[in-house]
Amino acid sequence: MKKNILILNTGGTLSSVAKENGLTPGLHAGDLEEQIRLVAGGAKLTIIDLLQVDSANIFPEDWALLAQRIRDSRYTYEGVVIIHGTDTLAYTSSMLSFMLQGIEIPVVITGSQMSIAEPVTDAMENLRCAINMAQSGRPGVFVAFNRKIILGCRASKVRSVSFDAFESINAPCLGQISAMGLEFNEYAFPELKSPFELRNRYSKEVGIVKMFPGVHRSVLKMYAEKGYQAIYIEAYGLGGMPFLNHDFIASVKELVDQGIVVLVGTQCRFEGSKMNIYETGIRALEAGVYQAFDMTTEAAITKLMWVLGQTQDPEEIRKYLTTNLCGEVTME
Amino acid sequence: MKKNILILNTGGTLSSVAKENGLTPGLHAGDLEEQIRLVAGGAKLTIIDLLQVDSANIFPEDWALLAQRIRDSRYTYEGVVIIHGTDTLAYTSSMLSFMLQGIEIPVVITGSQMSIAEPVTDAMENLRCAINMAQSGRPGVFVAFNRKIILGCRASKVRSVSFDAFESINAPCLGQISAMGLEFNEYAFPELKSPFELRNRYSKEVGIVKMFPGVHRSVLKMYAEKGYQAIYIEAYGLGGMPFLNHDFIASVKELVDQGIVVLVGTQCRFEGSKMNIYETGIRALEAGVYQAFDMTTEAAITKLMWVLGQTQDPEEIRKYLTTNLCGEVTME
Repeated sequence: MKKNILILNTGGTLSSVAKENGLTPGLHAGDLEEQIRLVAGGAKLTIIDLLQVDSANIFPEDWALLAQRIRDSRYTYEGVVIIHGTDTLAYTSSMLSFMLQGIEIPVVITGSQMSIAEPVTDAMENLRCAINMAQSGRPGVFVAFNRKIILGCRASKVRSVSFDAFESINAPCLGQISAMGLEFNEYAFPELKSPFELRNRYSKEVGIVKMFPGVHRSVLKMYAEKGYQAIYIEAYGLGGMPFLNHDFIASVKELVDQGIVVLVGTQCRFEGSKMNIYETGIRALEAGVYQAFDMTTEAAITKLMWVLGQTQDPEEIRKYLTTNLCGEVTME
Repeated sequence: MKKNILILNTGGTLSSVAKENGLTPGLHAGDLEEQIRLVAGGAKLTIIDLLQVDSANIFPEDWALLAQRIRDSRYTYEGVVIIHGTDTLAYTSSMLSFMLQGIEIPVVITGSQMSIAEPVTDAMENLRCAINMAQSGRPGVFVAFNRKIILGCRASKVRSVSFDAFESINAPCLGQISAMGLEFNEYAFPELKSPFELRNRYSKEVGIVKMFPGVHRSVLKMYAEKGYQAIYIEAYGLGGMPFLNHDFIASVKELVDQGIVVLVGTQCRFEGSKMNIYETGIRALEAGVYQAFDMTTEAAITKLMWVLGQTQDPEEIRKYLTTNLCGEVTME
């Protein structure tokens, strides 16, 4: 049974060529087709150029477009593969996880750390893995990279050079390729939501504040003055923030009192926030912040953008931010 | 030969006790002394309370104080151990690496993920390791944690719960404890600088901007308007930034043209920036930014604060930011 798989090319390293100003996307669907067919594994492929950008140049409007395109394709194709630059791949896979909740087919995002035109490229293996996953019939948004399948909202780029660029953060991989083929870790798949409905609106008025010793409380006020709706704070350790001489938490409370949504996570790559243990976390919770628990920064910021795009009602916002929508968070 | 070791307690989890508002530092030198002596390994210990704070509440003024105290102690003691909360430990170890360049004795920062008062605490093993390192006679600033010795300016907290909380980022550990005792990886030690001179001034007008798809260019202008001297940008992958519809790089150039120092690194935890490969990086370099290469965010932001505290001369700033001062960076 030949499955129809749609491949959407957005650019990135996989399709890059050396130009005067450095490596930049340059190969189009037509240039990629012959090589991609080598790893189609029996699938009937349709390859389309949607964008042609380094993923540093991906912005939320591209996510809205991608999500819409996938919505429109879901009865024509049995799976979608997105070729994407690695730099913002995990942000895209996180946001698509929110925008496409309940999607009935596999949506698999992949890319490579080296151009497909290079002799030792990782592009072919990543495409092989992604196309195989797209044929699996497993619904959801996934990242396929270096023979691993990662839930879209759990992926993070942790290595800037190695082919093993992505990790599944605070959750096991969903599957991996070995001599046994593509095997799934069934326990790791999140519960399915249904039915599908495209929800690709988002707020643009969302910012990130990263804590460091010396960060000024006034940074928060800068965002408030500019009319931001929500702030994600990459705090310390289990989610702690200063409250002594530099009373950052007092400034956070001012934001919350103005109706700005504040979500707090950790800059530790692994294991997430648990703000109910230390005084530095408990005081922040008392100020009215939400905590990100074990979400990645990629999932936290895109969830915030997405939630504020769905509603302005504080009670609905509260519900979204205290609910695991698609496997992005483990609540306590 | 009994060595004189000074132990400076600044608080943190190691000395924490459960209070009404959650875990908070509460044990003083006198309370800790009996237990610390159990792992002194023959050293003559002097234990002093310098601060009593959760390290989320550590700020640059504390670093200046710590550095001064260590300067004053370096002929009386043959090694210093700092007990510190884990949340900002890697920022402190990075900044002390810059402030104490050329220090003649071991300065070893440690802490724990669980209070010393708990039956299964990691505090005793971390103190054992730190005191052993402090007796080693190896000059420099180090982190001792979970039986590993990490160069101060290479440490980062990557796990918020596990005892193995710190990693040596983009550089091998300097040593580890096994059945062979504390063994050093000699090749991993940086070249020594001399002579020592306390240089504990720093700039407070330094900020961090973390990139994400949707970040507004205007964030950079917000910092410029507030009179910031320098910005560290946590960019993507090899150090790329957007320049198409959202021309972030143009805004970066405006900052540089105003004399604001911009340092660019990566949000990938491992392997660092290499901005001369992709167009997204090359254009940023052309805008006049410095790149952080394989520095941690902790080292990058503290180096920026430290450099701007030493000089306002653009040529001297250039020299500092393109020089490996104490092992914090591998230049290309």
